[in-house]
Amino acid sequence: MLTLTRRERFNAAHKLYREDWTDEKNKEVFGKCANKNWHGHNYELFVTVKGDIKPDTGFIIDLKWLSAMLQEKIIEPLDHRNLNLDVPFLKGKMCSTEVLTVEIWNIIAEDIEGQGAELHSLKLMETENNFVEYYGPNA
Amino acid sequence: MLTLTRRERFNAAHKLYREDWTDEKNKEVFGKCANKNWHGHNYELFVTVKGDIKPDTGFIIDLKWLSAMLQEKIIEPLDHRNLNLDVPFLKGKMCSTEVLTVEIWNIIAEDIEGQGAELHSLKLMETENNFVEYYGPNA
Amino acid sequence: MLTLTRRERFNAAHKLYREDWTDEKNKEVFGKCANKNWHGHNYELFVTVKGDIKPDTGFIIDLKWLSAMLQEKIIEPLDHRNLNLDVPFLKGKMCSTEVLTVEIWNIIAEDIEGQGAELHSLKLMETENNFVEYYGPNA
Amino acid sequence: MLTLTRRERFNAAHKLYREDWTDEKNKEVFGKCANKNWHGHNYELFVTVKGDIKPDTGFIIDLKWLSAMLQEKIIEPLDHRNLNLDVPFLKGKMCSTEVLTVEIWNIIAEDIEGQGAELHSLKLMETENNFVEYYGPNA
Amino acid sequence: MLTLTRRERFNAAHKLYREDWTDEKNKEVFGKCANKNWHGHNYELFVTVKGDIKPDTGFIIDLKWLSAMLQEKIIEPLDHRNLNLDVPFLKGKMCSTEVLTVEIWNIIAEDIEGQGAELHSLKLMETENNFVEYYGPNA
Amino acid sequence: MLTLTRRERFNAAHKLYREDWTDEKNKEVFGKCANKNWHGHNYELFVTVKGDIKPDTGFIIDLKWLSAMLQEKIIEPLDHRNLNLDVPFLKGKMCSTEVLTVEIWNIIAEDIEGQGAELHSLKLMETENNFVEYYGPNA
Repeated sequence: MLTLTRRERFNAAHKLYREDWTDEKNKEVFGKCANKNWHGHNYELFVTVKGDIKPDTGFIIDLKWLSAMLQEKIIEPLDHRNLNLDVPFLKGKMCSTEVLTVEIWNIIAEDIEGQGAELHSLKLMETENNFVEYYGPNA
Repeated sequence: MLTLTRRERFNAAHKLYREDWTDEKNKEVFGKCANKNWHGHNYELFVTVKGDIKPDTGFIIDLKWLSAMLQEKIIEPLDHRNLNLDVPFLKGKMCSTEVLTVEIWNIIAEDIEGQGAELHSLKLMETENNFVEYYGPNA
Repeated sequence: MLTLTRRERFNAAHKLYREDWTDEKNKEVFGKCANKNWHGHNYELFVTVKGDIKPDTGFIIDLKWLSAMLQEKIIEPLDHRNLNLDVPFLKGKMCSTEVLTVEIWNIIAEDIEGQGAELHSLKLMETENNFVEYYGPNA
Repeated sequence: MLTLTRRERFNAAHKLYREDWTDEKNKEVFGKCANKNWHGHNYELFVTVKGDIKPDTGFIIDLKWLSAMLQEKIIEPLDHRNLNLDVPFLKGKMCSTEVLTVEIWNIIAEDIEGQGAELHSLKLMETENNFVEYYGPNA
Repeated sequence: MLTLTRRERFNAAHKLYREDWTDEKNKEVFGKCANKNWHGHNYELFVTVKGDIKPDTGFIIDLKWLSAMLQEKIIEPLDHRNLNLDVPFLKGKMCSTEVLTVEIWNIIAEDIEGQGAELHSLKLMETENNFVEYYGPNA
Repeated sequence: MLTLTRRERFNAAHKLYREDWTDEKNKEVFGKCANKNWHGHNYELFVTVKGDIKPDTGFIIDLKWLSAMLQEKIIEPLDHRNLNLDVPFLKGKMCSTEVLTVEIWNIIAEDIEGQGAELHSLKLMETENNFVEYYGPNA
């Protein structure tokens, strides 16, 4: 098995809270992540694609295409945005790193298959101490 | 000259905009940093203290004291906050990295002098690509 | 498959040697790692937990609980200690990164199951050039 | 499953191009990576070895042996070289990170088996944003 | 004194050699850096600008302008190039990190003054272990 | 002003304590750094040398010489050692990062002058959060 990984970055605001919970309950469960006026992160996204080496290029996938697709489909809607308020594909969902990672998978997996490769995993770092990895719905 | 540096971190939301400018003017000057619903960063603050080695401890300053003071005076008011809305010492000011760095200096310089040392410089990183350094009003 | 990883750090002394070997044999096998008066490292521990997203929180596991448990069970007994002399769960064992990683697994795996998730893997970095990963006794 | 990873580094020049394509075609497919007079990278290679803990040492494999073997077999032929012109095992092959990673596997896998362990995976970083991982021909 | 720093990156090939020296002399002085067919690096350039905070923006300098100018004047001519062969402002000069850093200063210092700020220093990293800093001809 | 910096690394054990203080006093002043059986760090040393560009090489100083001198004079006596017990130049001194940095200066400054350059500063990192910088006795 052979994979290629591309890192992209975005800076976003968010908070963790539920409208159907009291402030006290939100504070108890989410701590300072529930603070009313948002906080934010420099997110780092690692996209790992699996495939065979194409004999004519030596590539699994065209990195220029991968980076351009990620910019258009993921970075543009997330970068310098509020994850809770501005992002159509997160509407009505918890803005945890886990949920965001799964949603990114759903948006890009098919495009990558269209290039003759396969999305293998995503890694989304919220801070240098916390990150999520996702291997897809069938792993 | 001998200095000791302590790194502390905080995660905050902010935006760059002026209420007295139109949306178009804000967008023209600040670009995506002016996006309405905030964005955010993992800020890294490096606090550099200058002084002589105290003969009994081998220290310029007590790192435990320095870290505790920074937690109380700087990290607690900034971490998981909105820099524009939640931070008393930024009220009515532009929330640029430059301005924030100068304000942090004003809050901690005197406390450090009280420990027999001197605040030499601050470095505040907004992203891995952008950071500000400040050597104080007399440098 | 979905995982969440938490990084924790500790600074410890150790050496690699066997009491039942001569100094020459220890030096031959372990090189400078066998030096008599200890050396030390800034260890970085990455704890990866596997599970489903809890619908009410969007979390695999409560990061505040995970970090507090690791502080109590792992960091407190290891940080600023001598791994060979001070750590009950390493008594009589070789203090290699491999052995330490397996012992950490044995201490925390059950606690994580008690939270409705599963310990997936550990990564223990001794230096920027050397690290061990462990996926448990059944992997 | 338990693994140990060693990082080694080398600095090399290369380009991506095919002699049997026109300059235009090379530029179209490989972009600036096809620039005539070469460019280069600080490559980072992570070699991950799988095995059991040897009871007498606490090791999966002798790191001193692993590092010395990698220096001789991989770093010496690649470091401060031109991957397209100077490296016997890349002659006539595309100099992509993917191809280089697979070739490194072929050179070192057997040597590692001779030490009672198994090569589990390789990670080759070309930049902080792009890297390849390989788990061998049977994974 | 207040400064703002921007990091930019480029990947380039080079070698260290003098046409007017024998191969033996080049090898003796420059070691493997003199290898005939080039090697390369992922260079990191940190550009530090000094100035006052502009009251209307909170900025020392417009980062978007700074980054765009660096892309045009420095990164475009250096990235994915051969420093010895392709770069007009290095023609006939030694391609050491020291020389390259001084040449970059000469190209951008005046442009930065045109923005009401001052170039304070440059840092050019060739590897994680080696870097050069330059504070200008008058420092 | 132009400088060149070389990073070297060493792994060592130490503790902070005074034989002429009680255990209680040591614990009060030095906290867990006073723990009896030592702890340790992966130290990173950055040596910054100032000088003019030599016209024949484009160098401030020969990096191969600098690295070899640092290995012999600094890394060999410190690496995989106990700073309190094993290091002649620290005998009878507090093993703080501050003291160690000043002692390193005293050992290497003259050798660097012998190469037609000048030691400008040292940076010694104990952890990713704490480091000391020294500009010499006359700065």
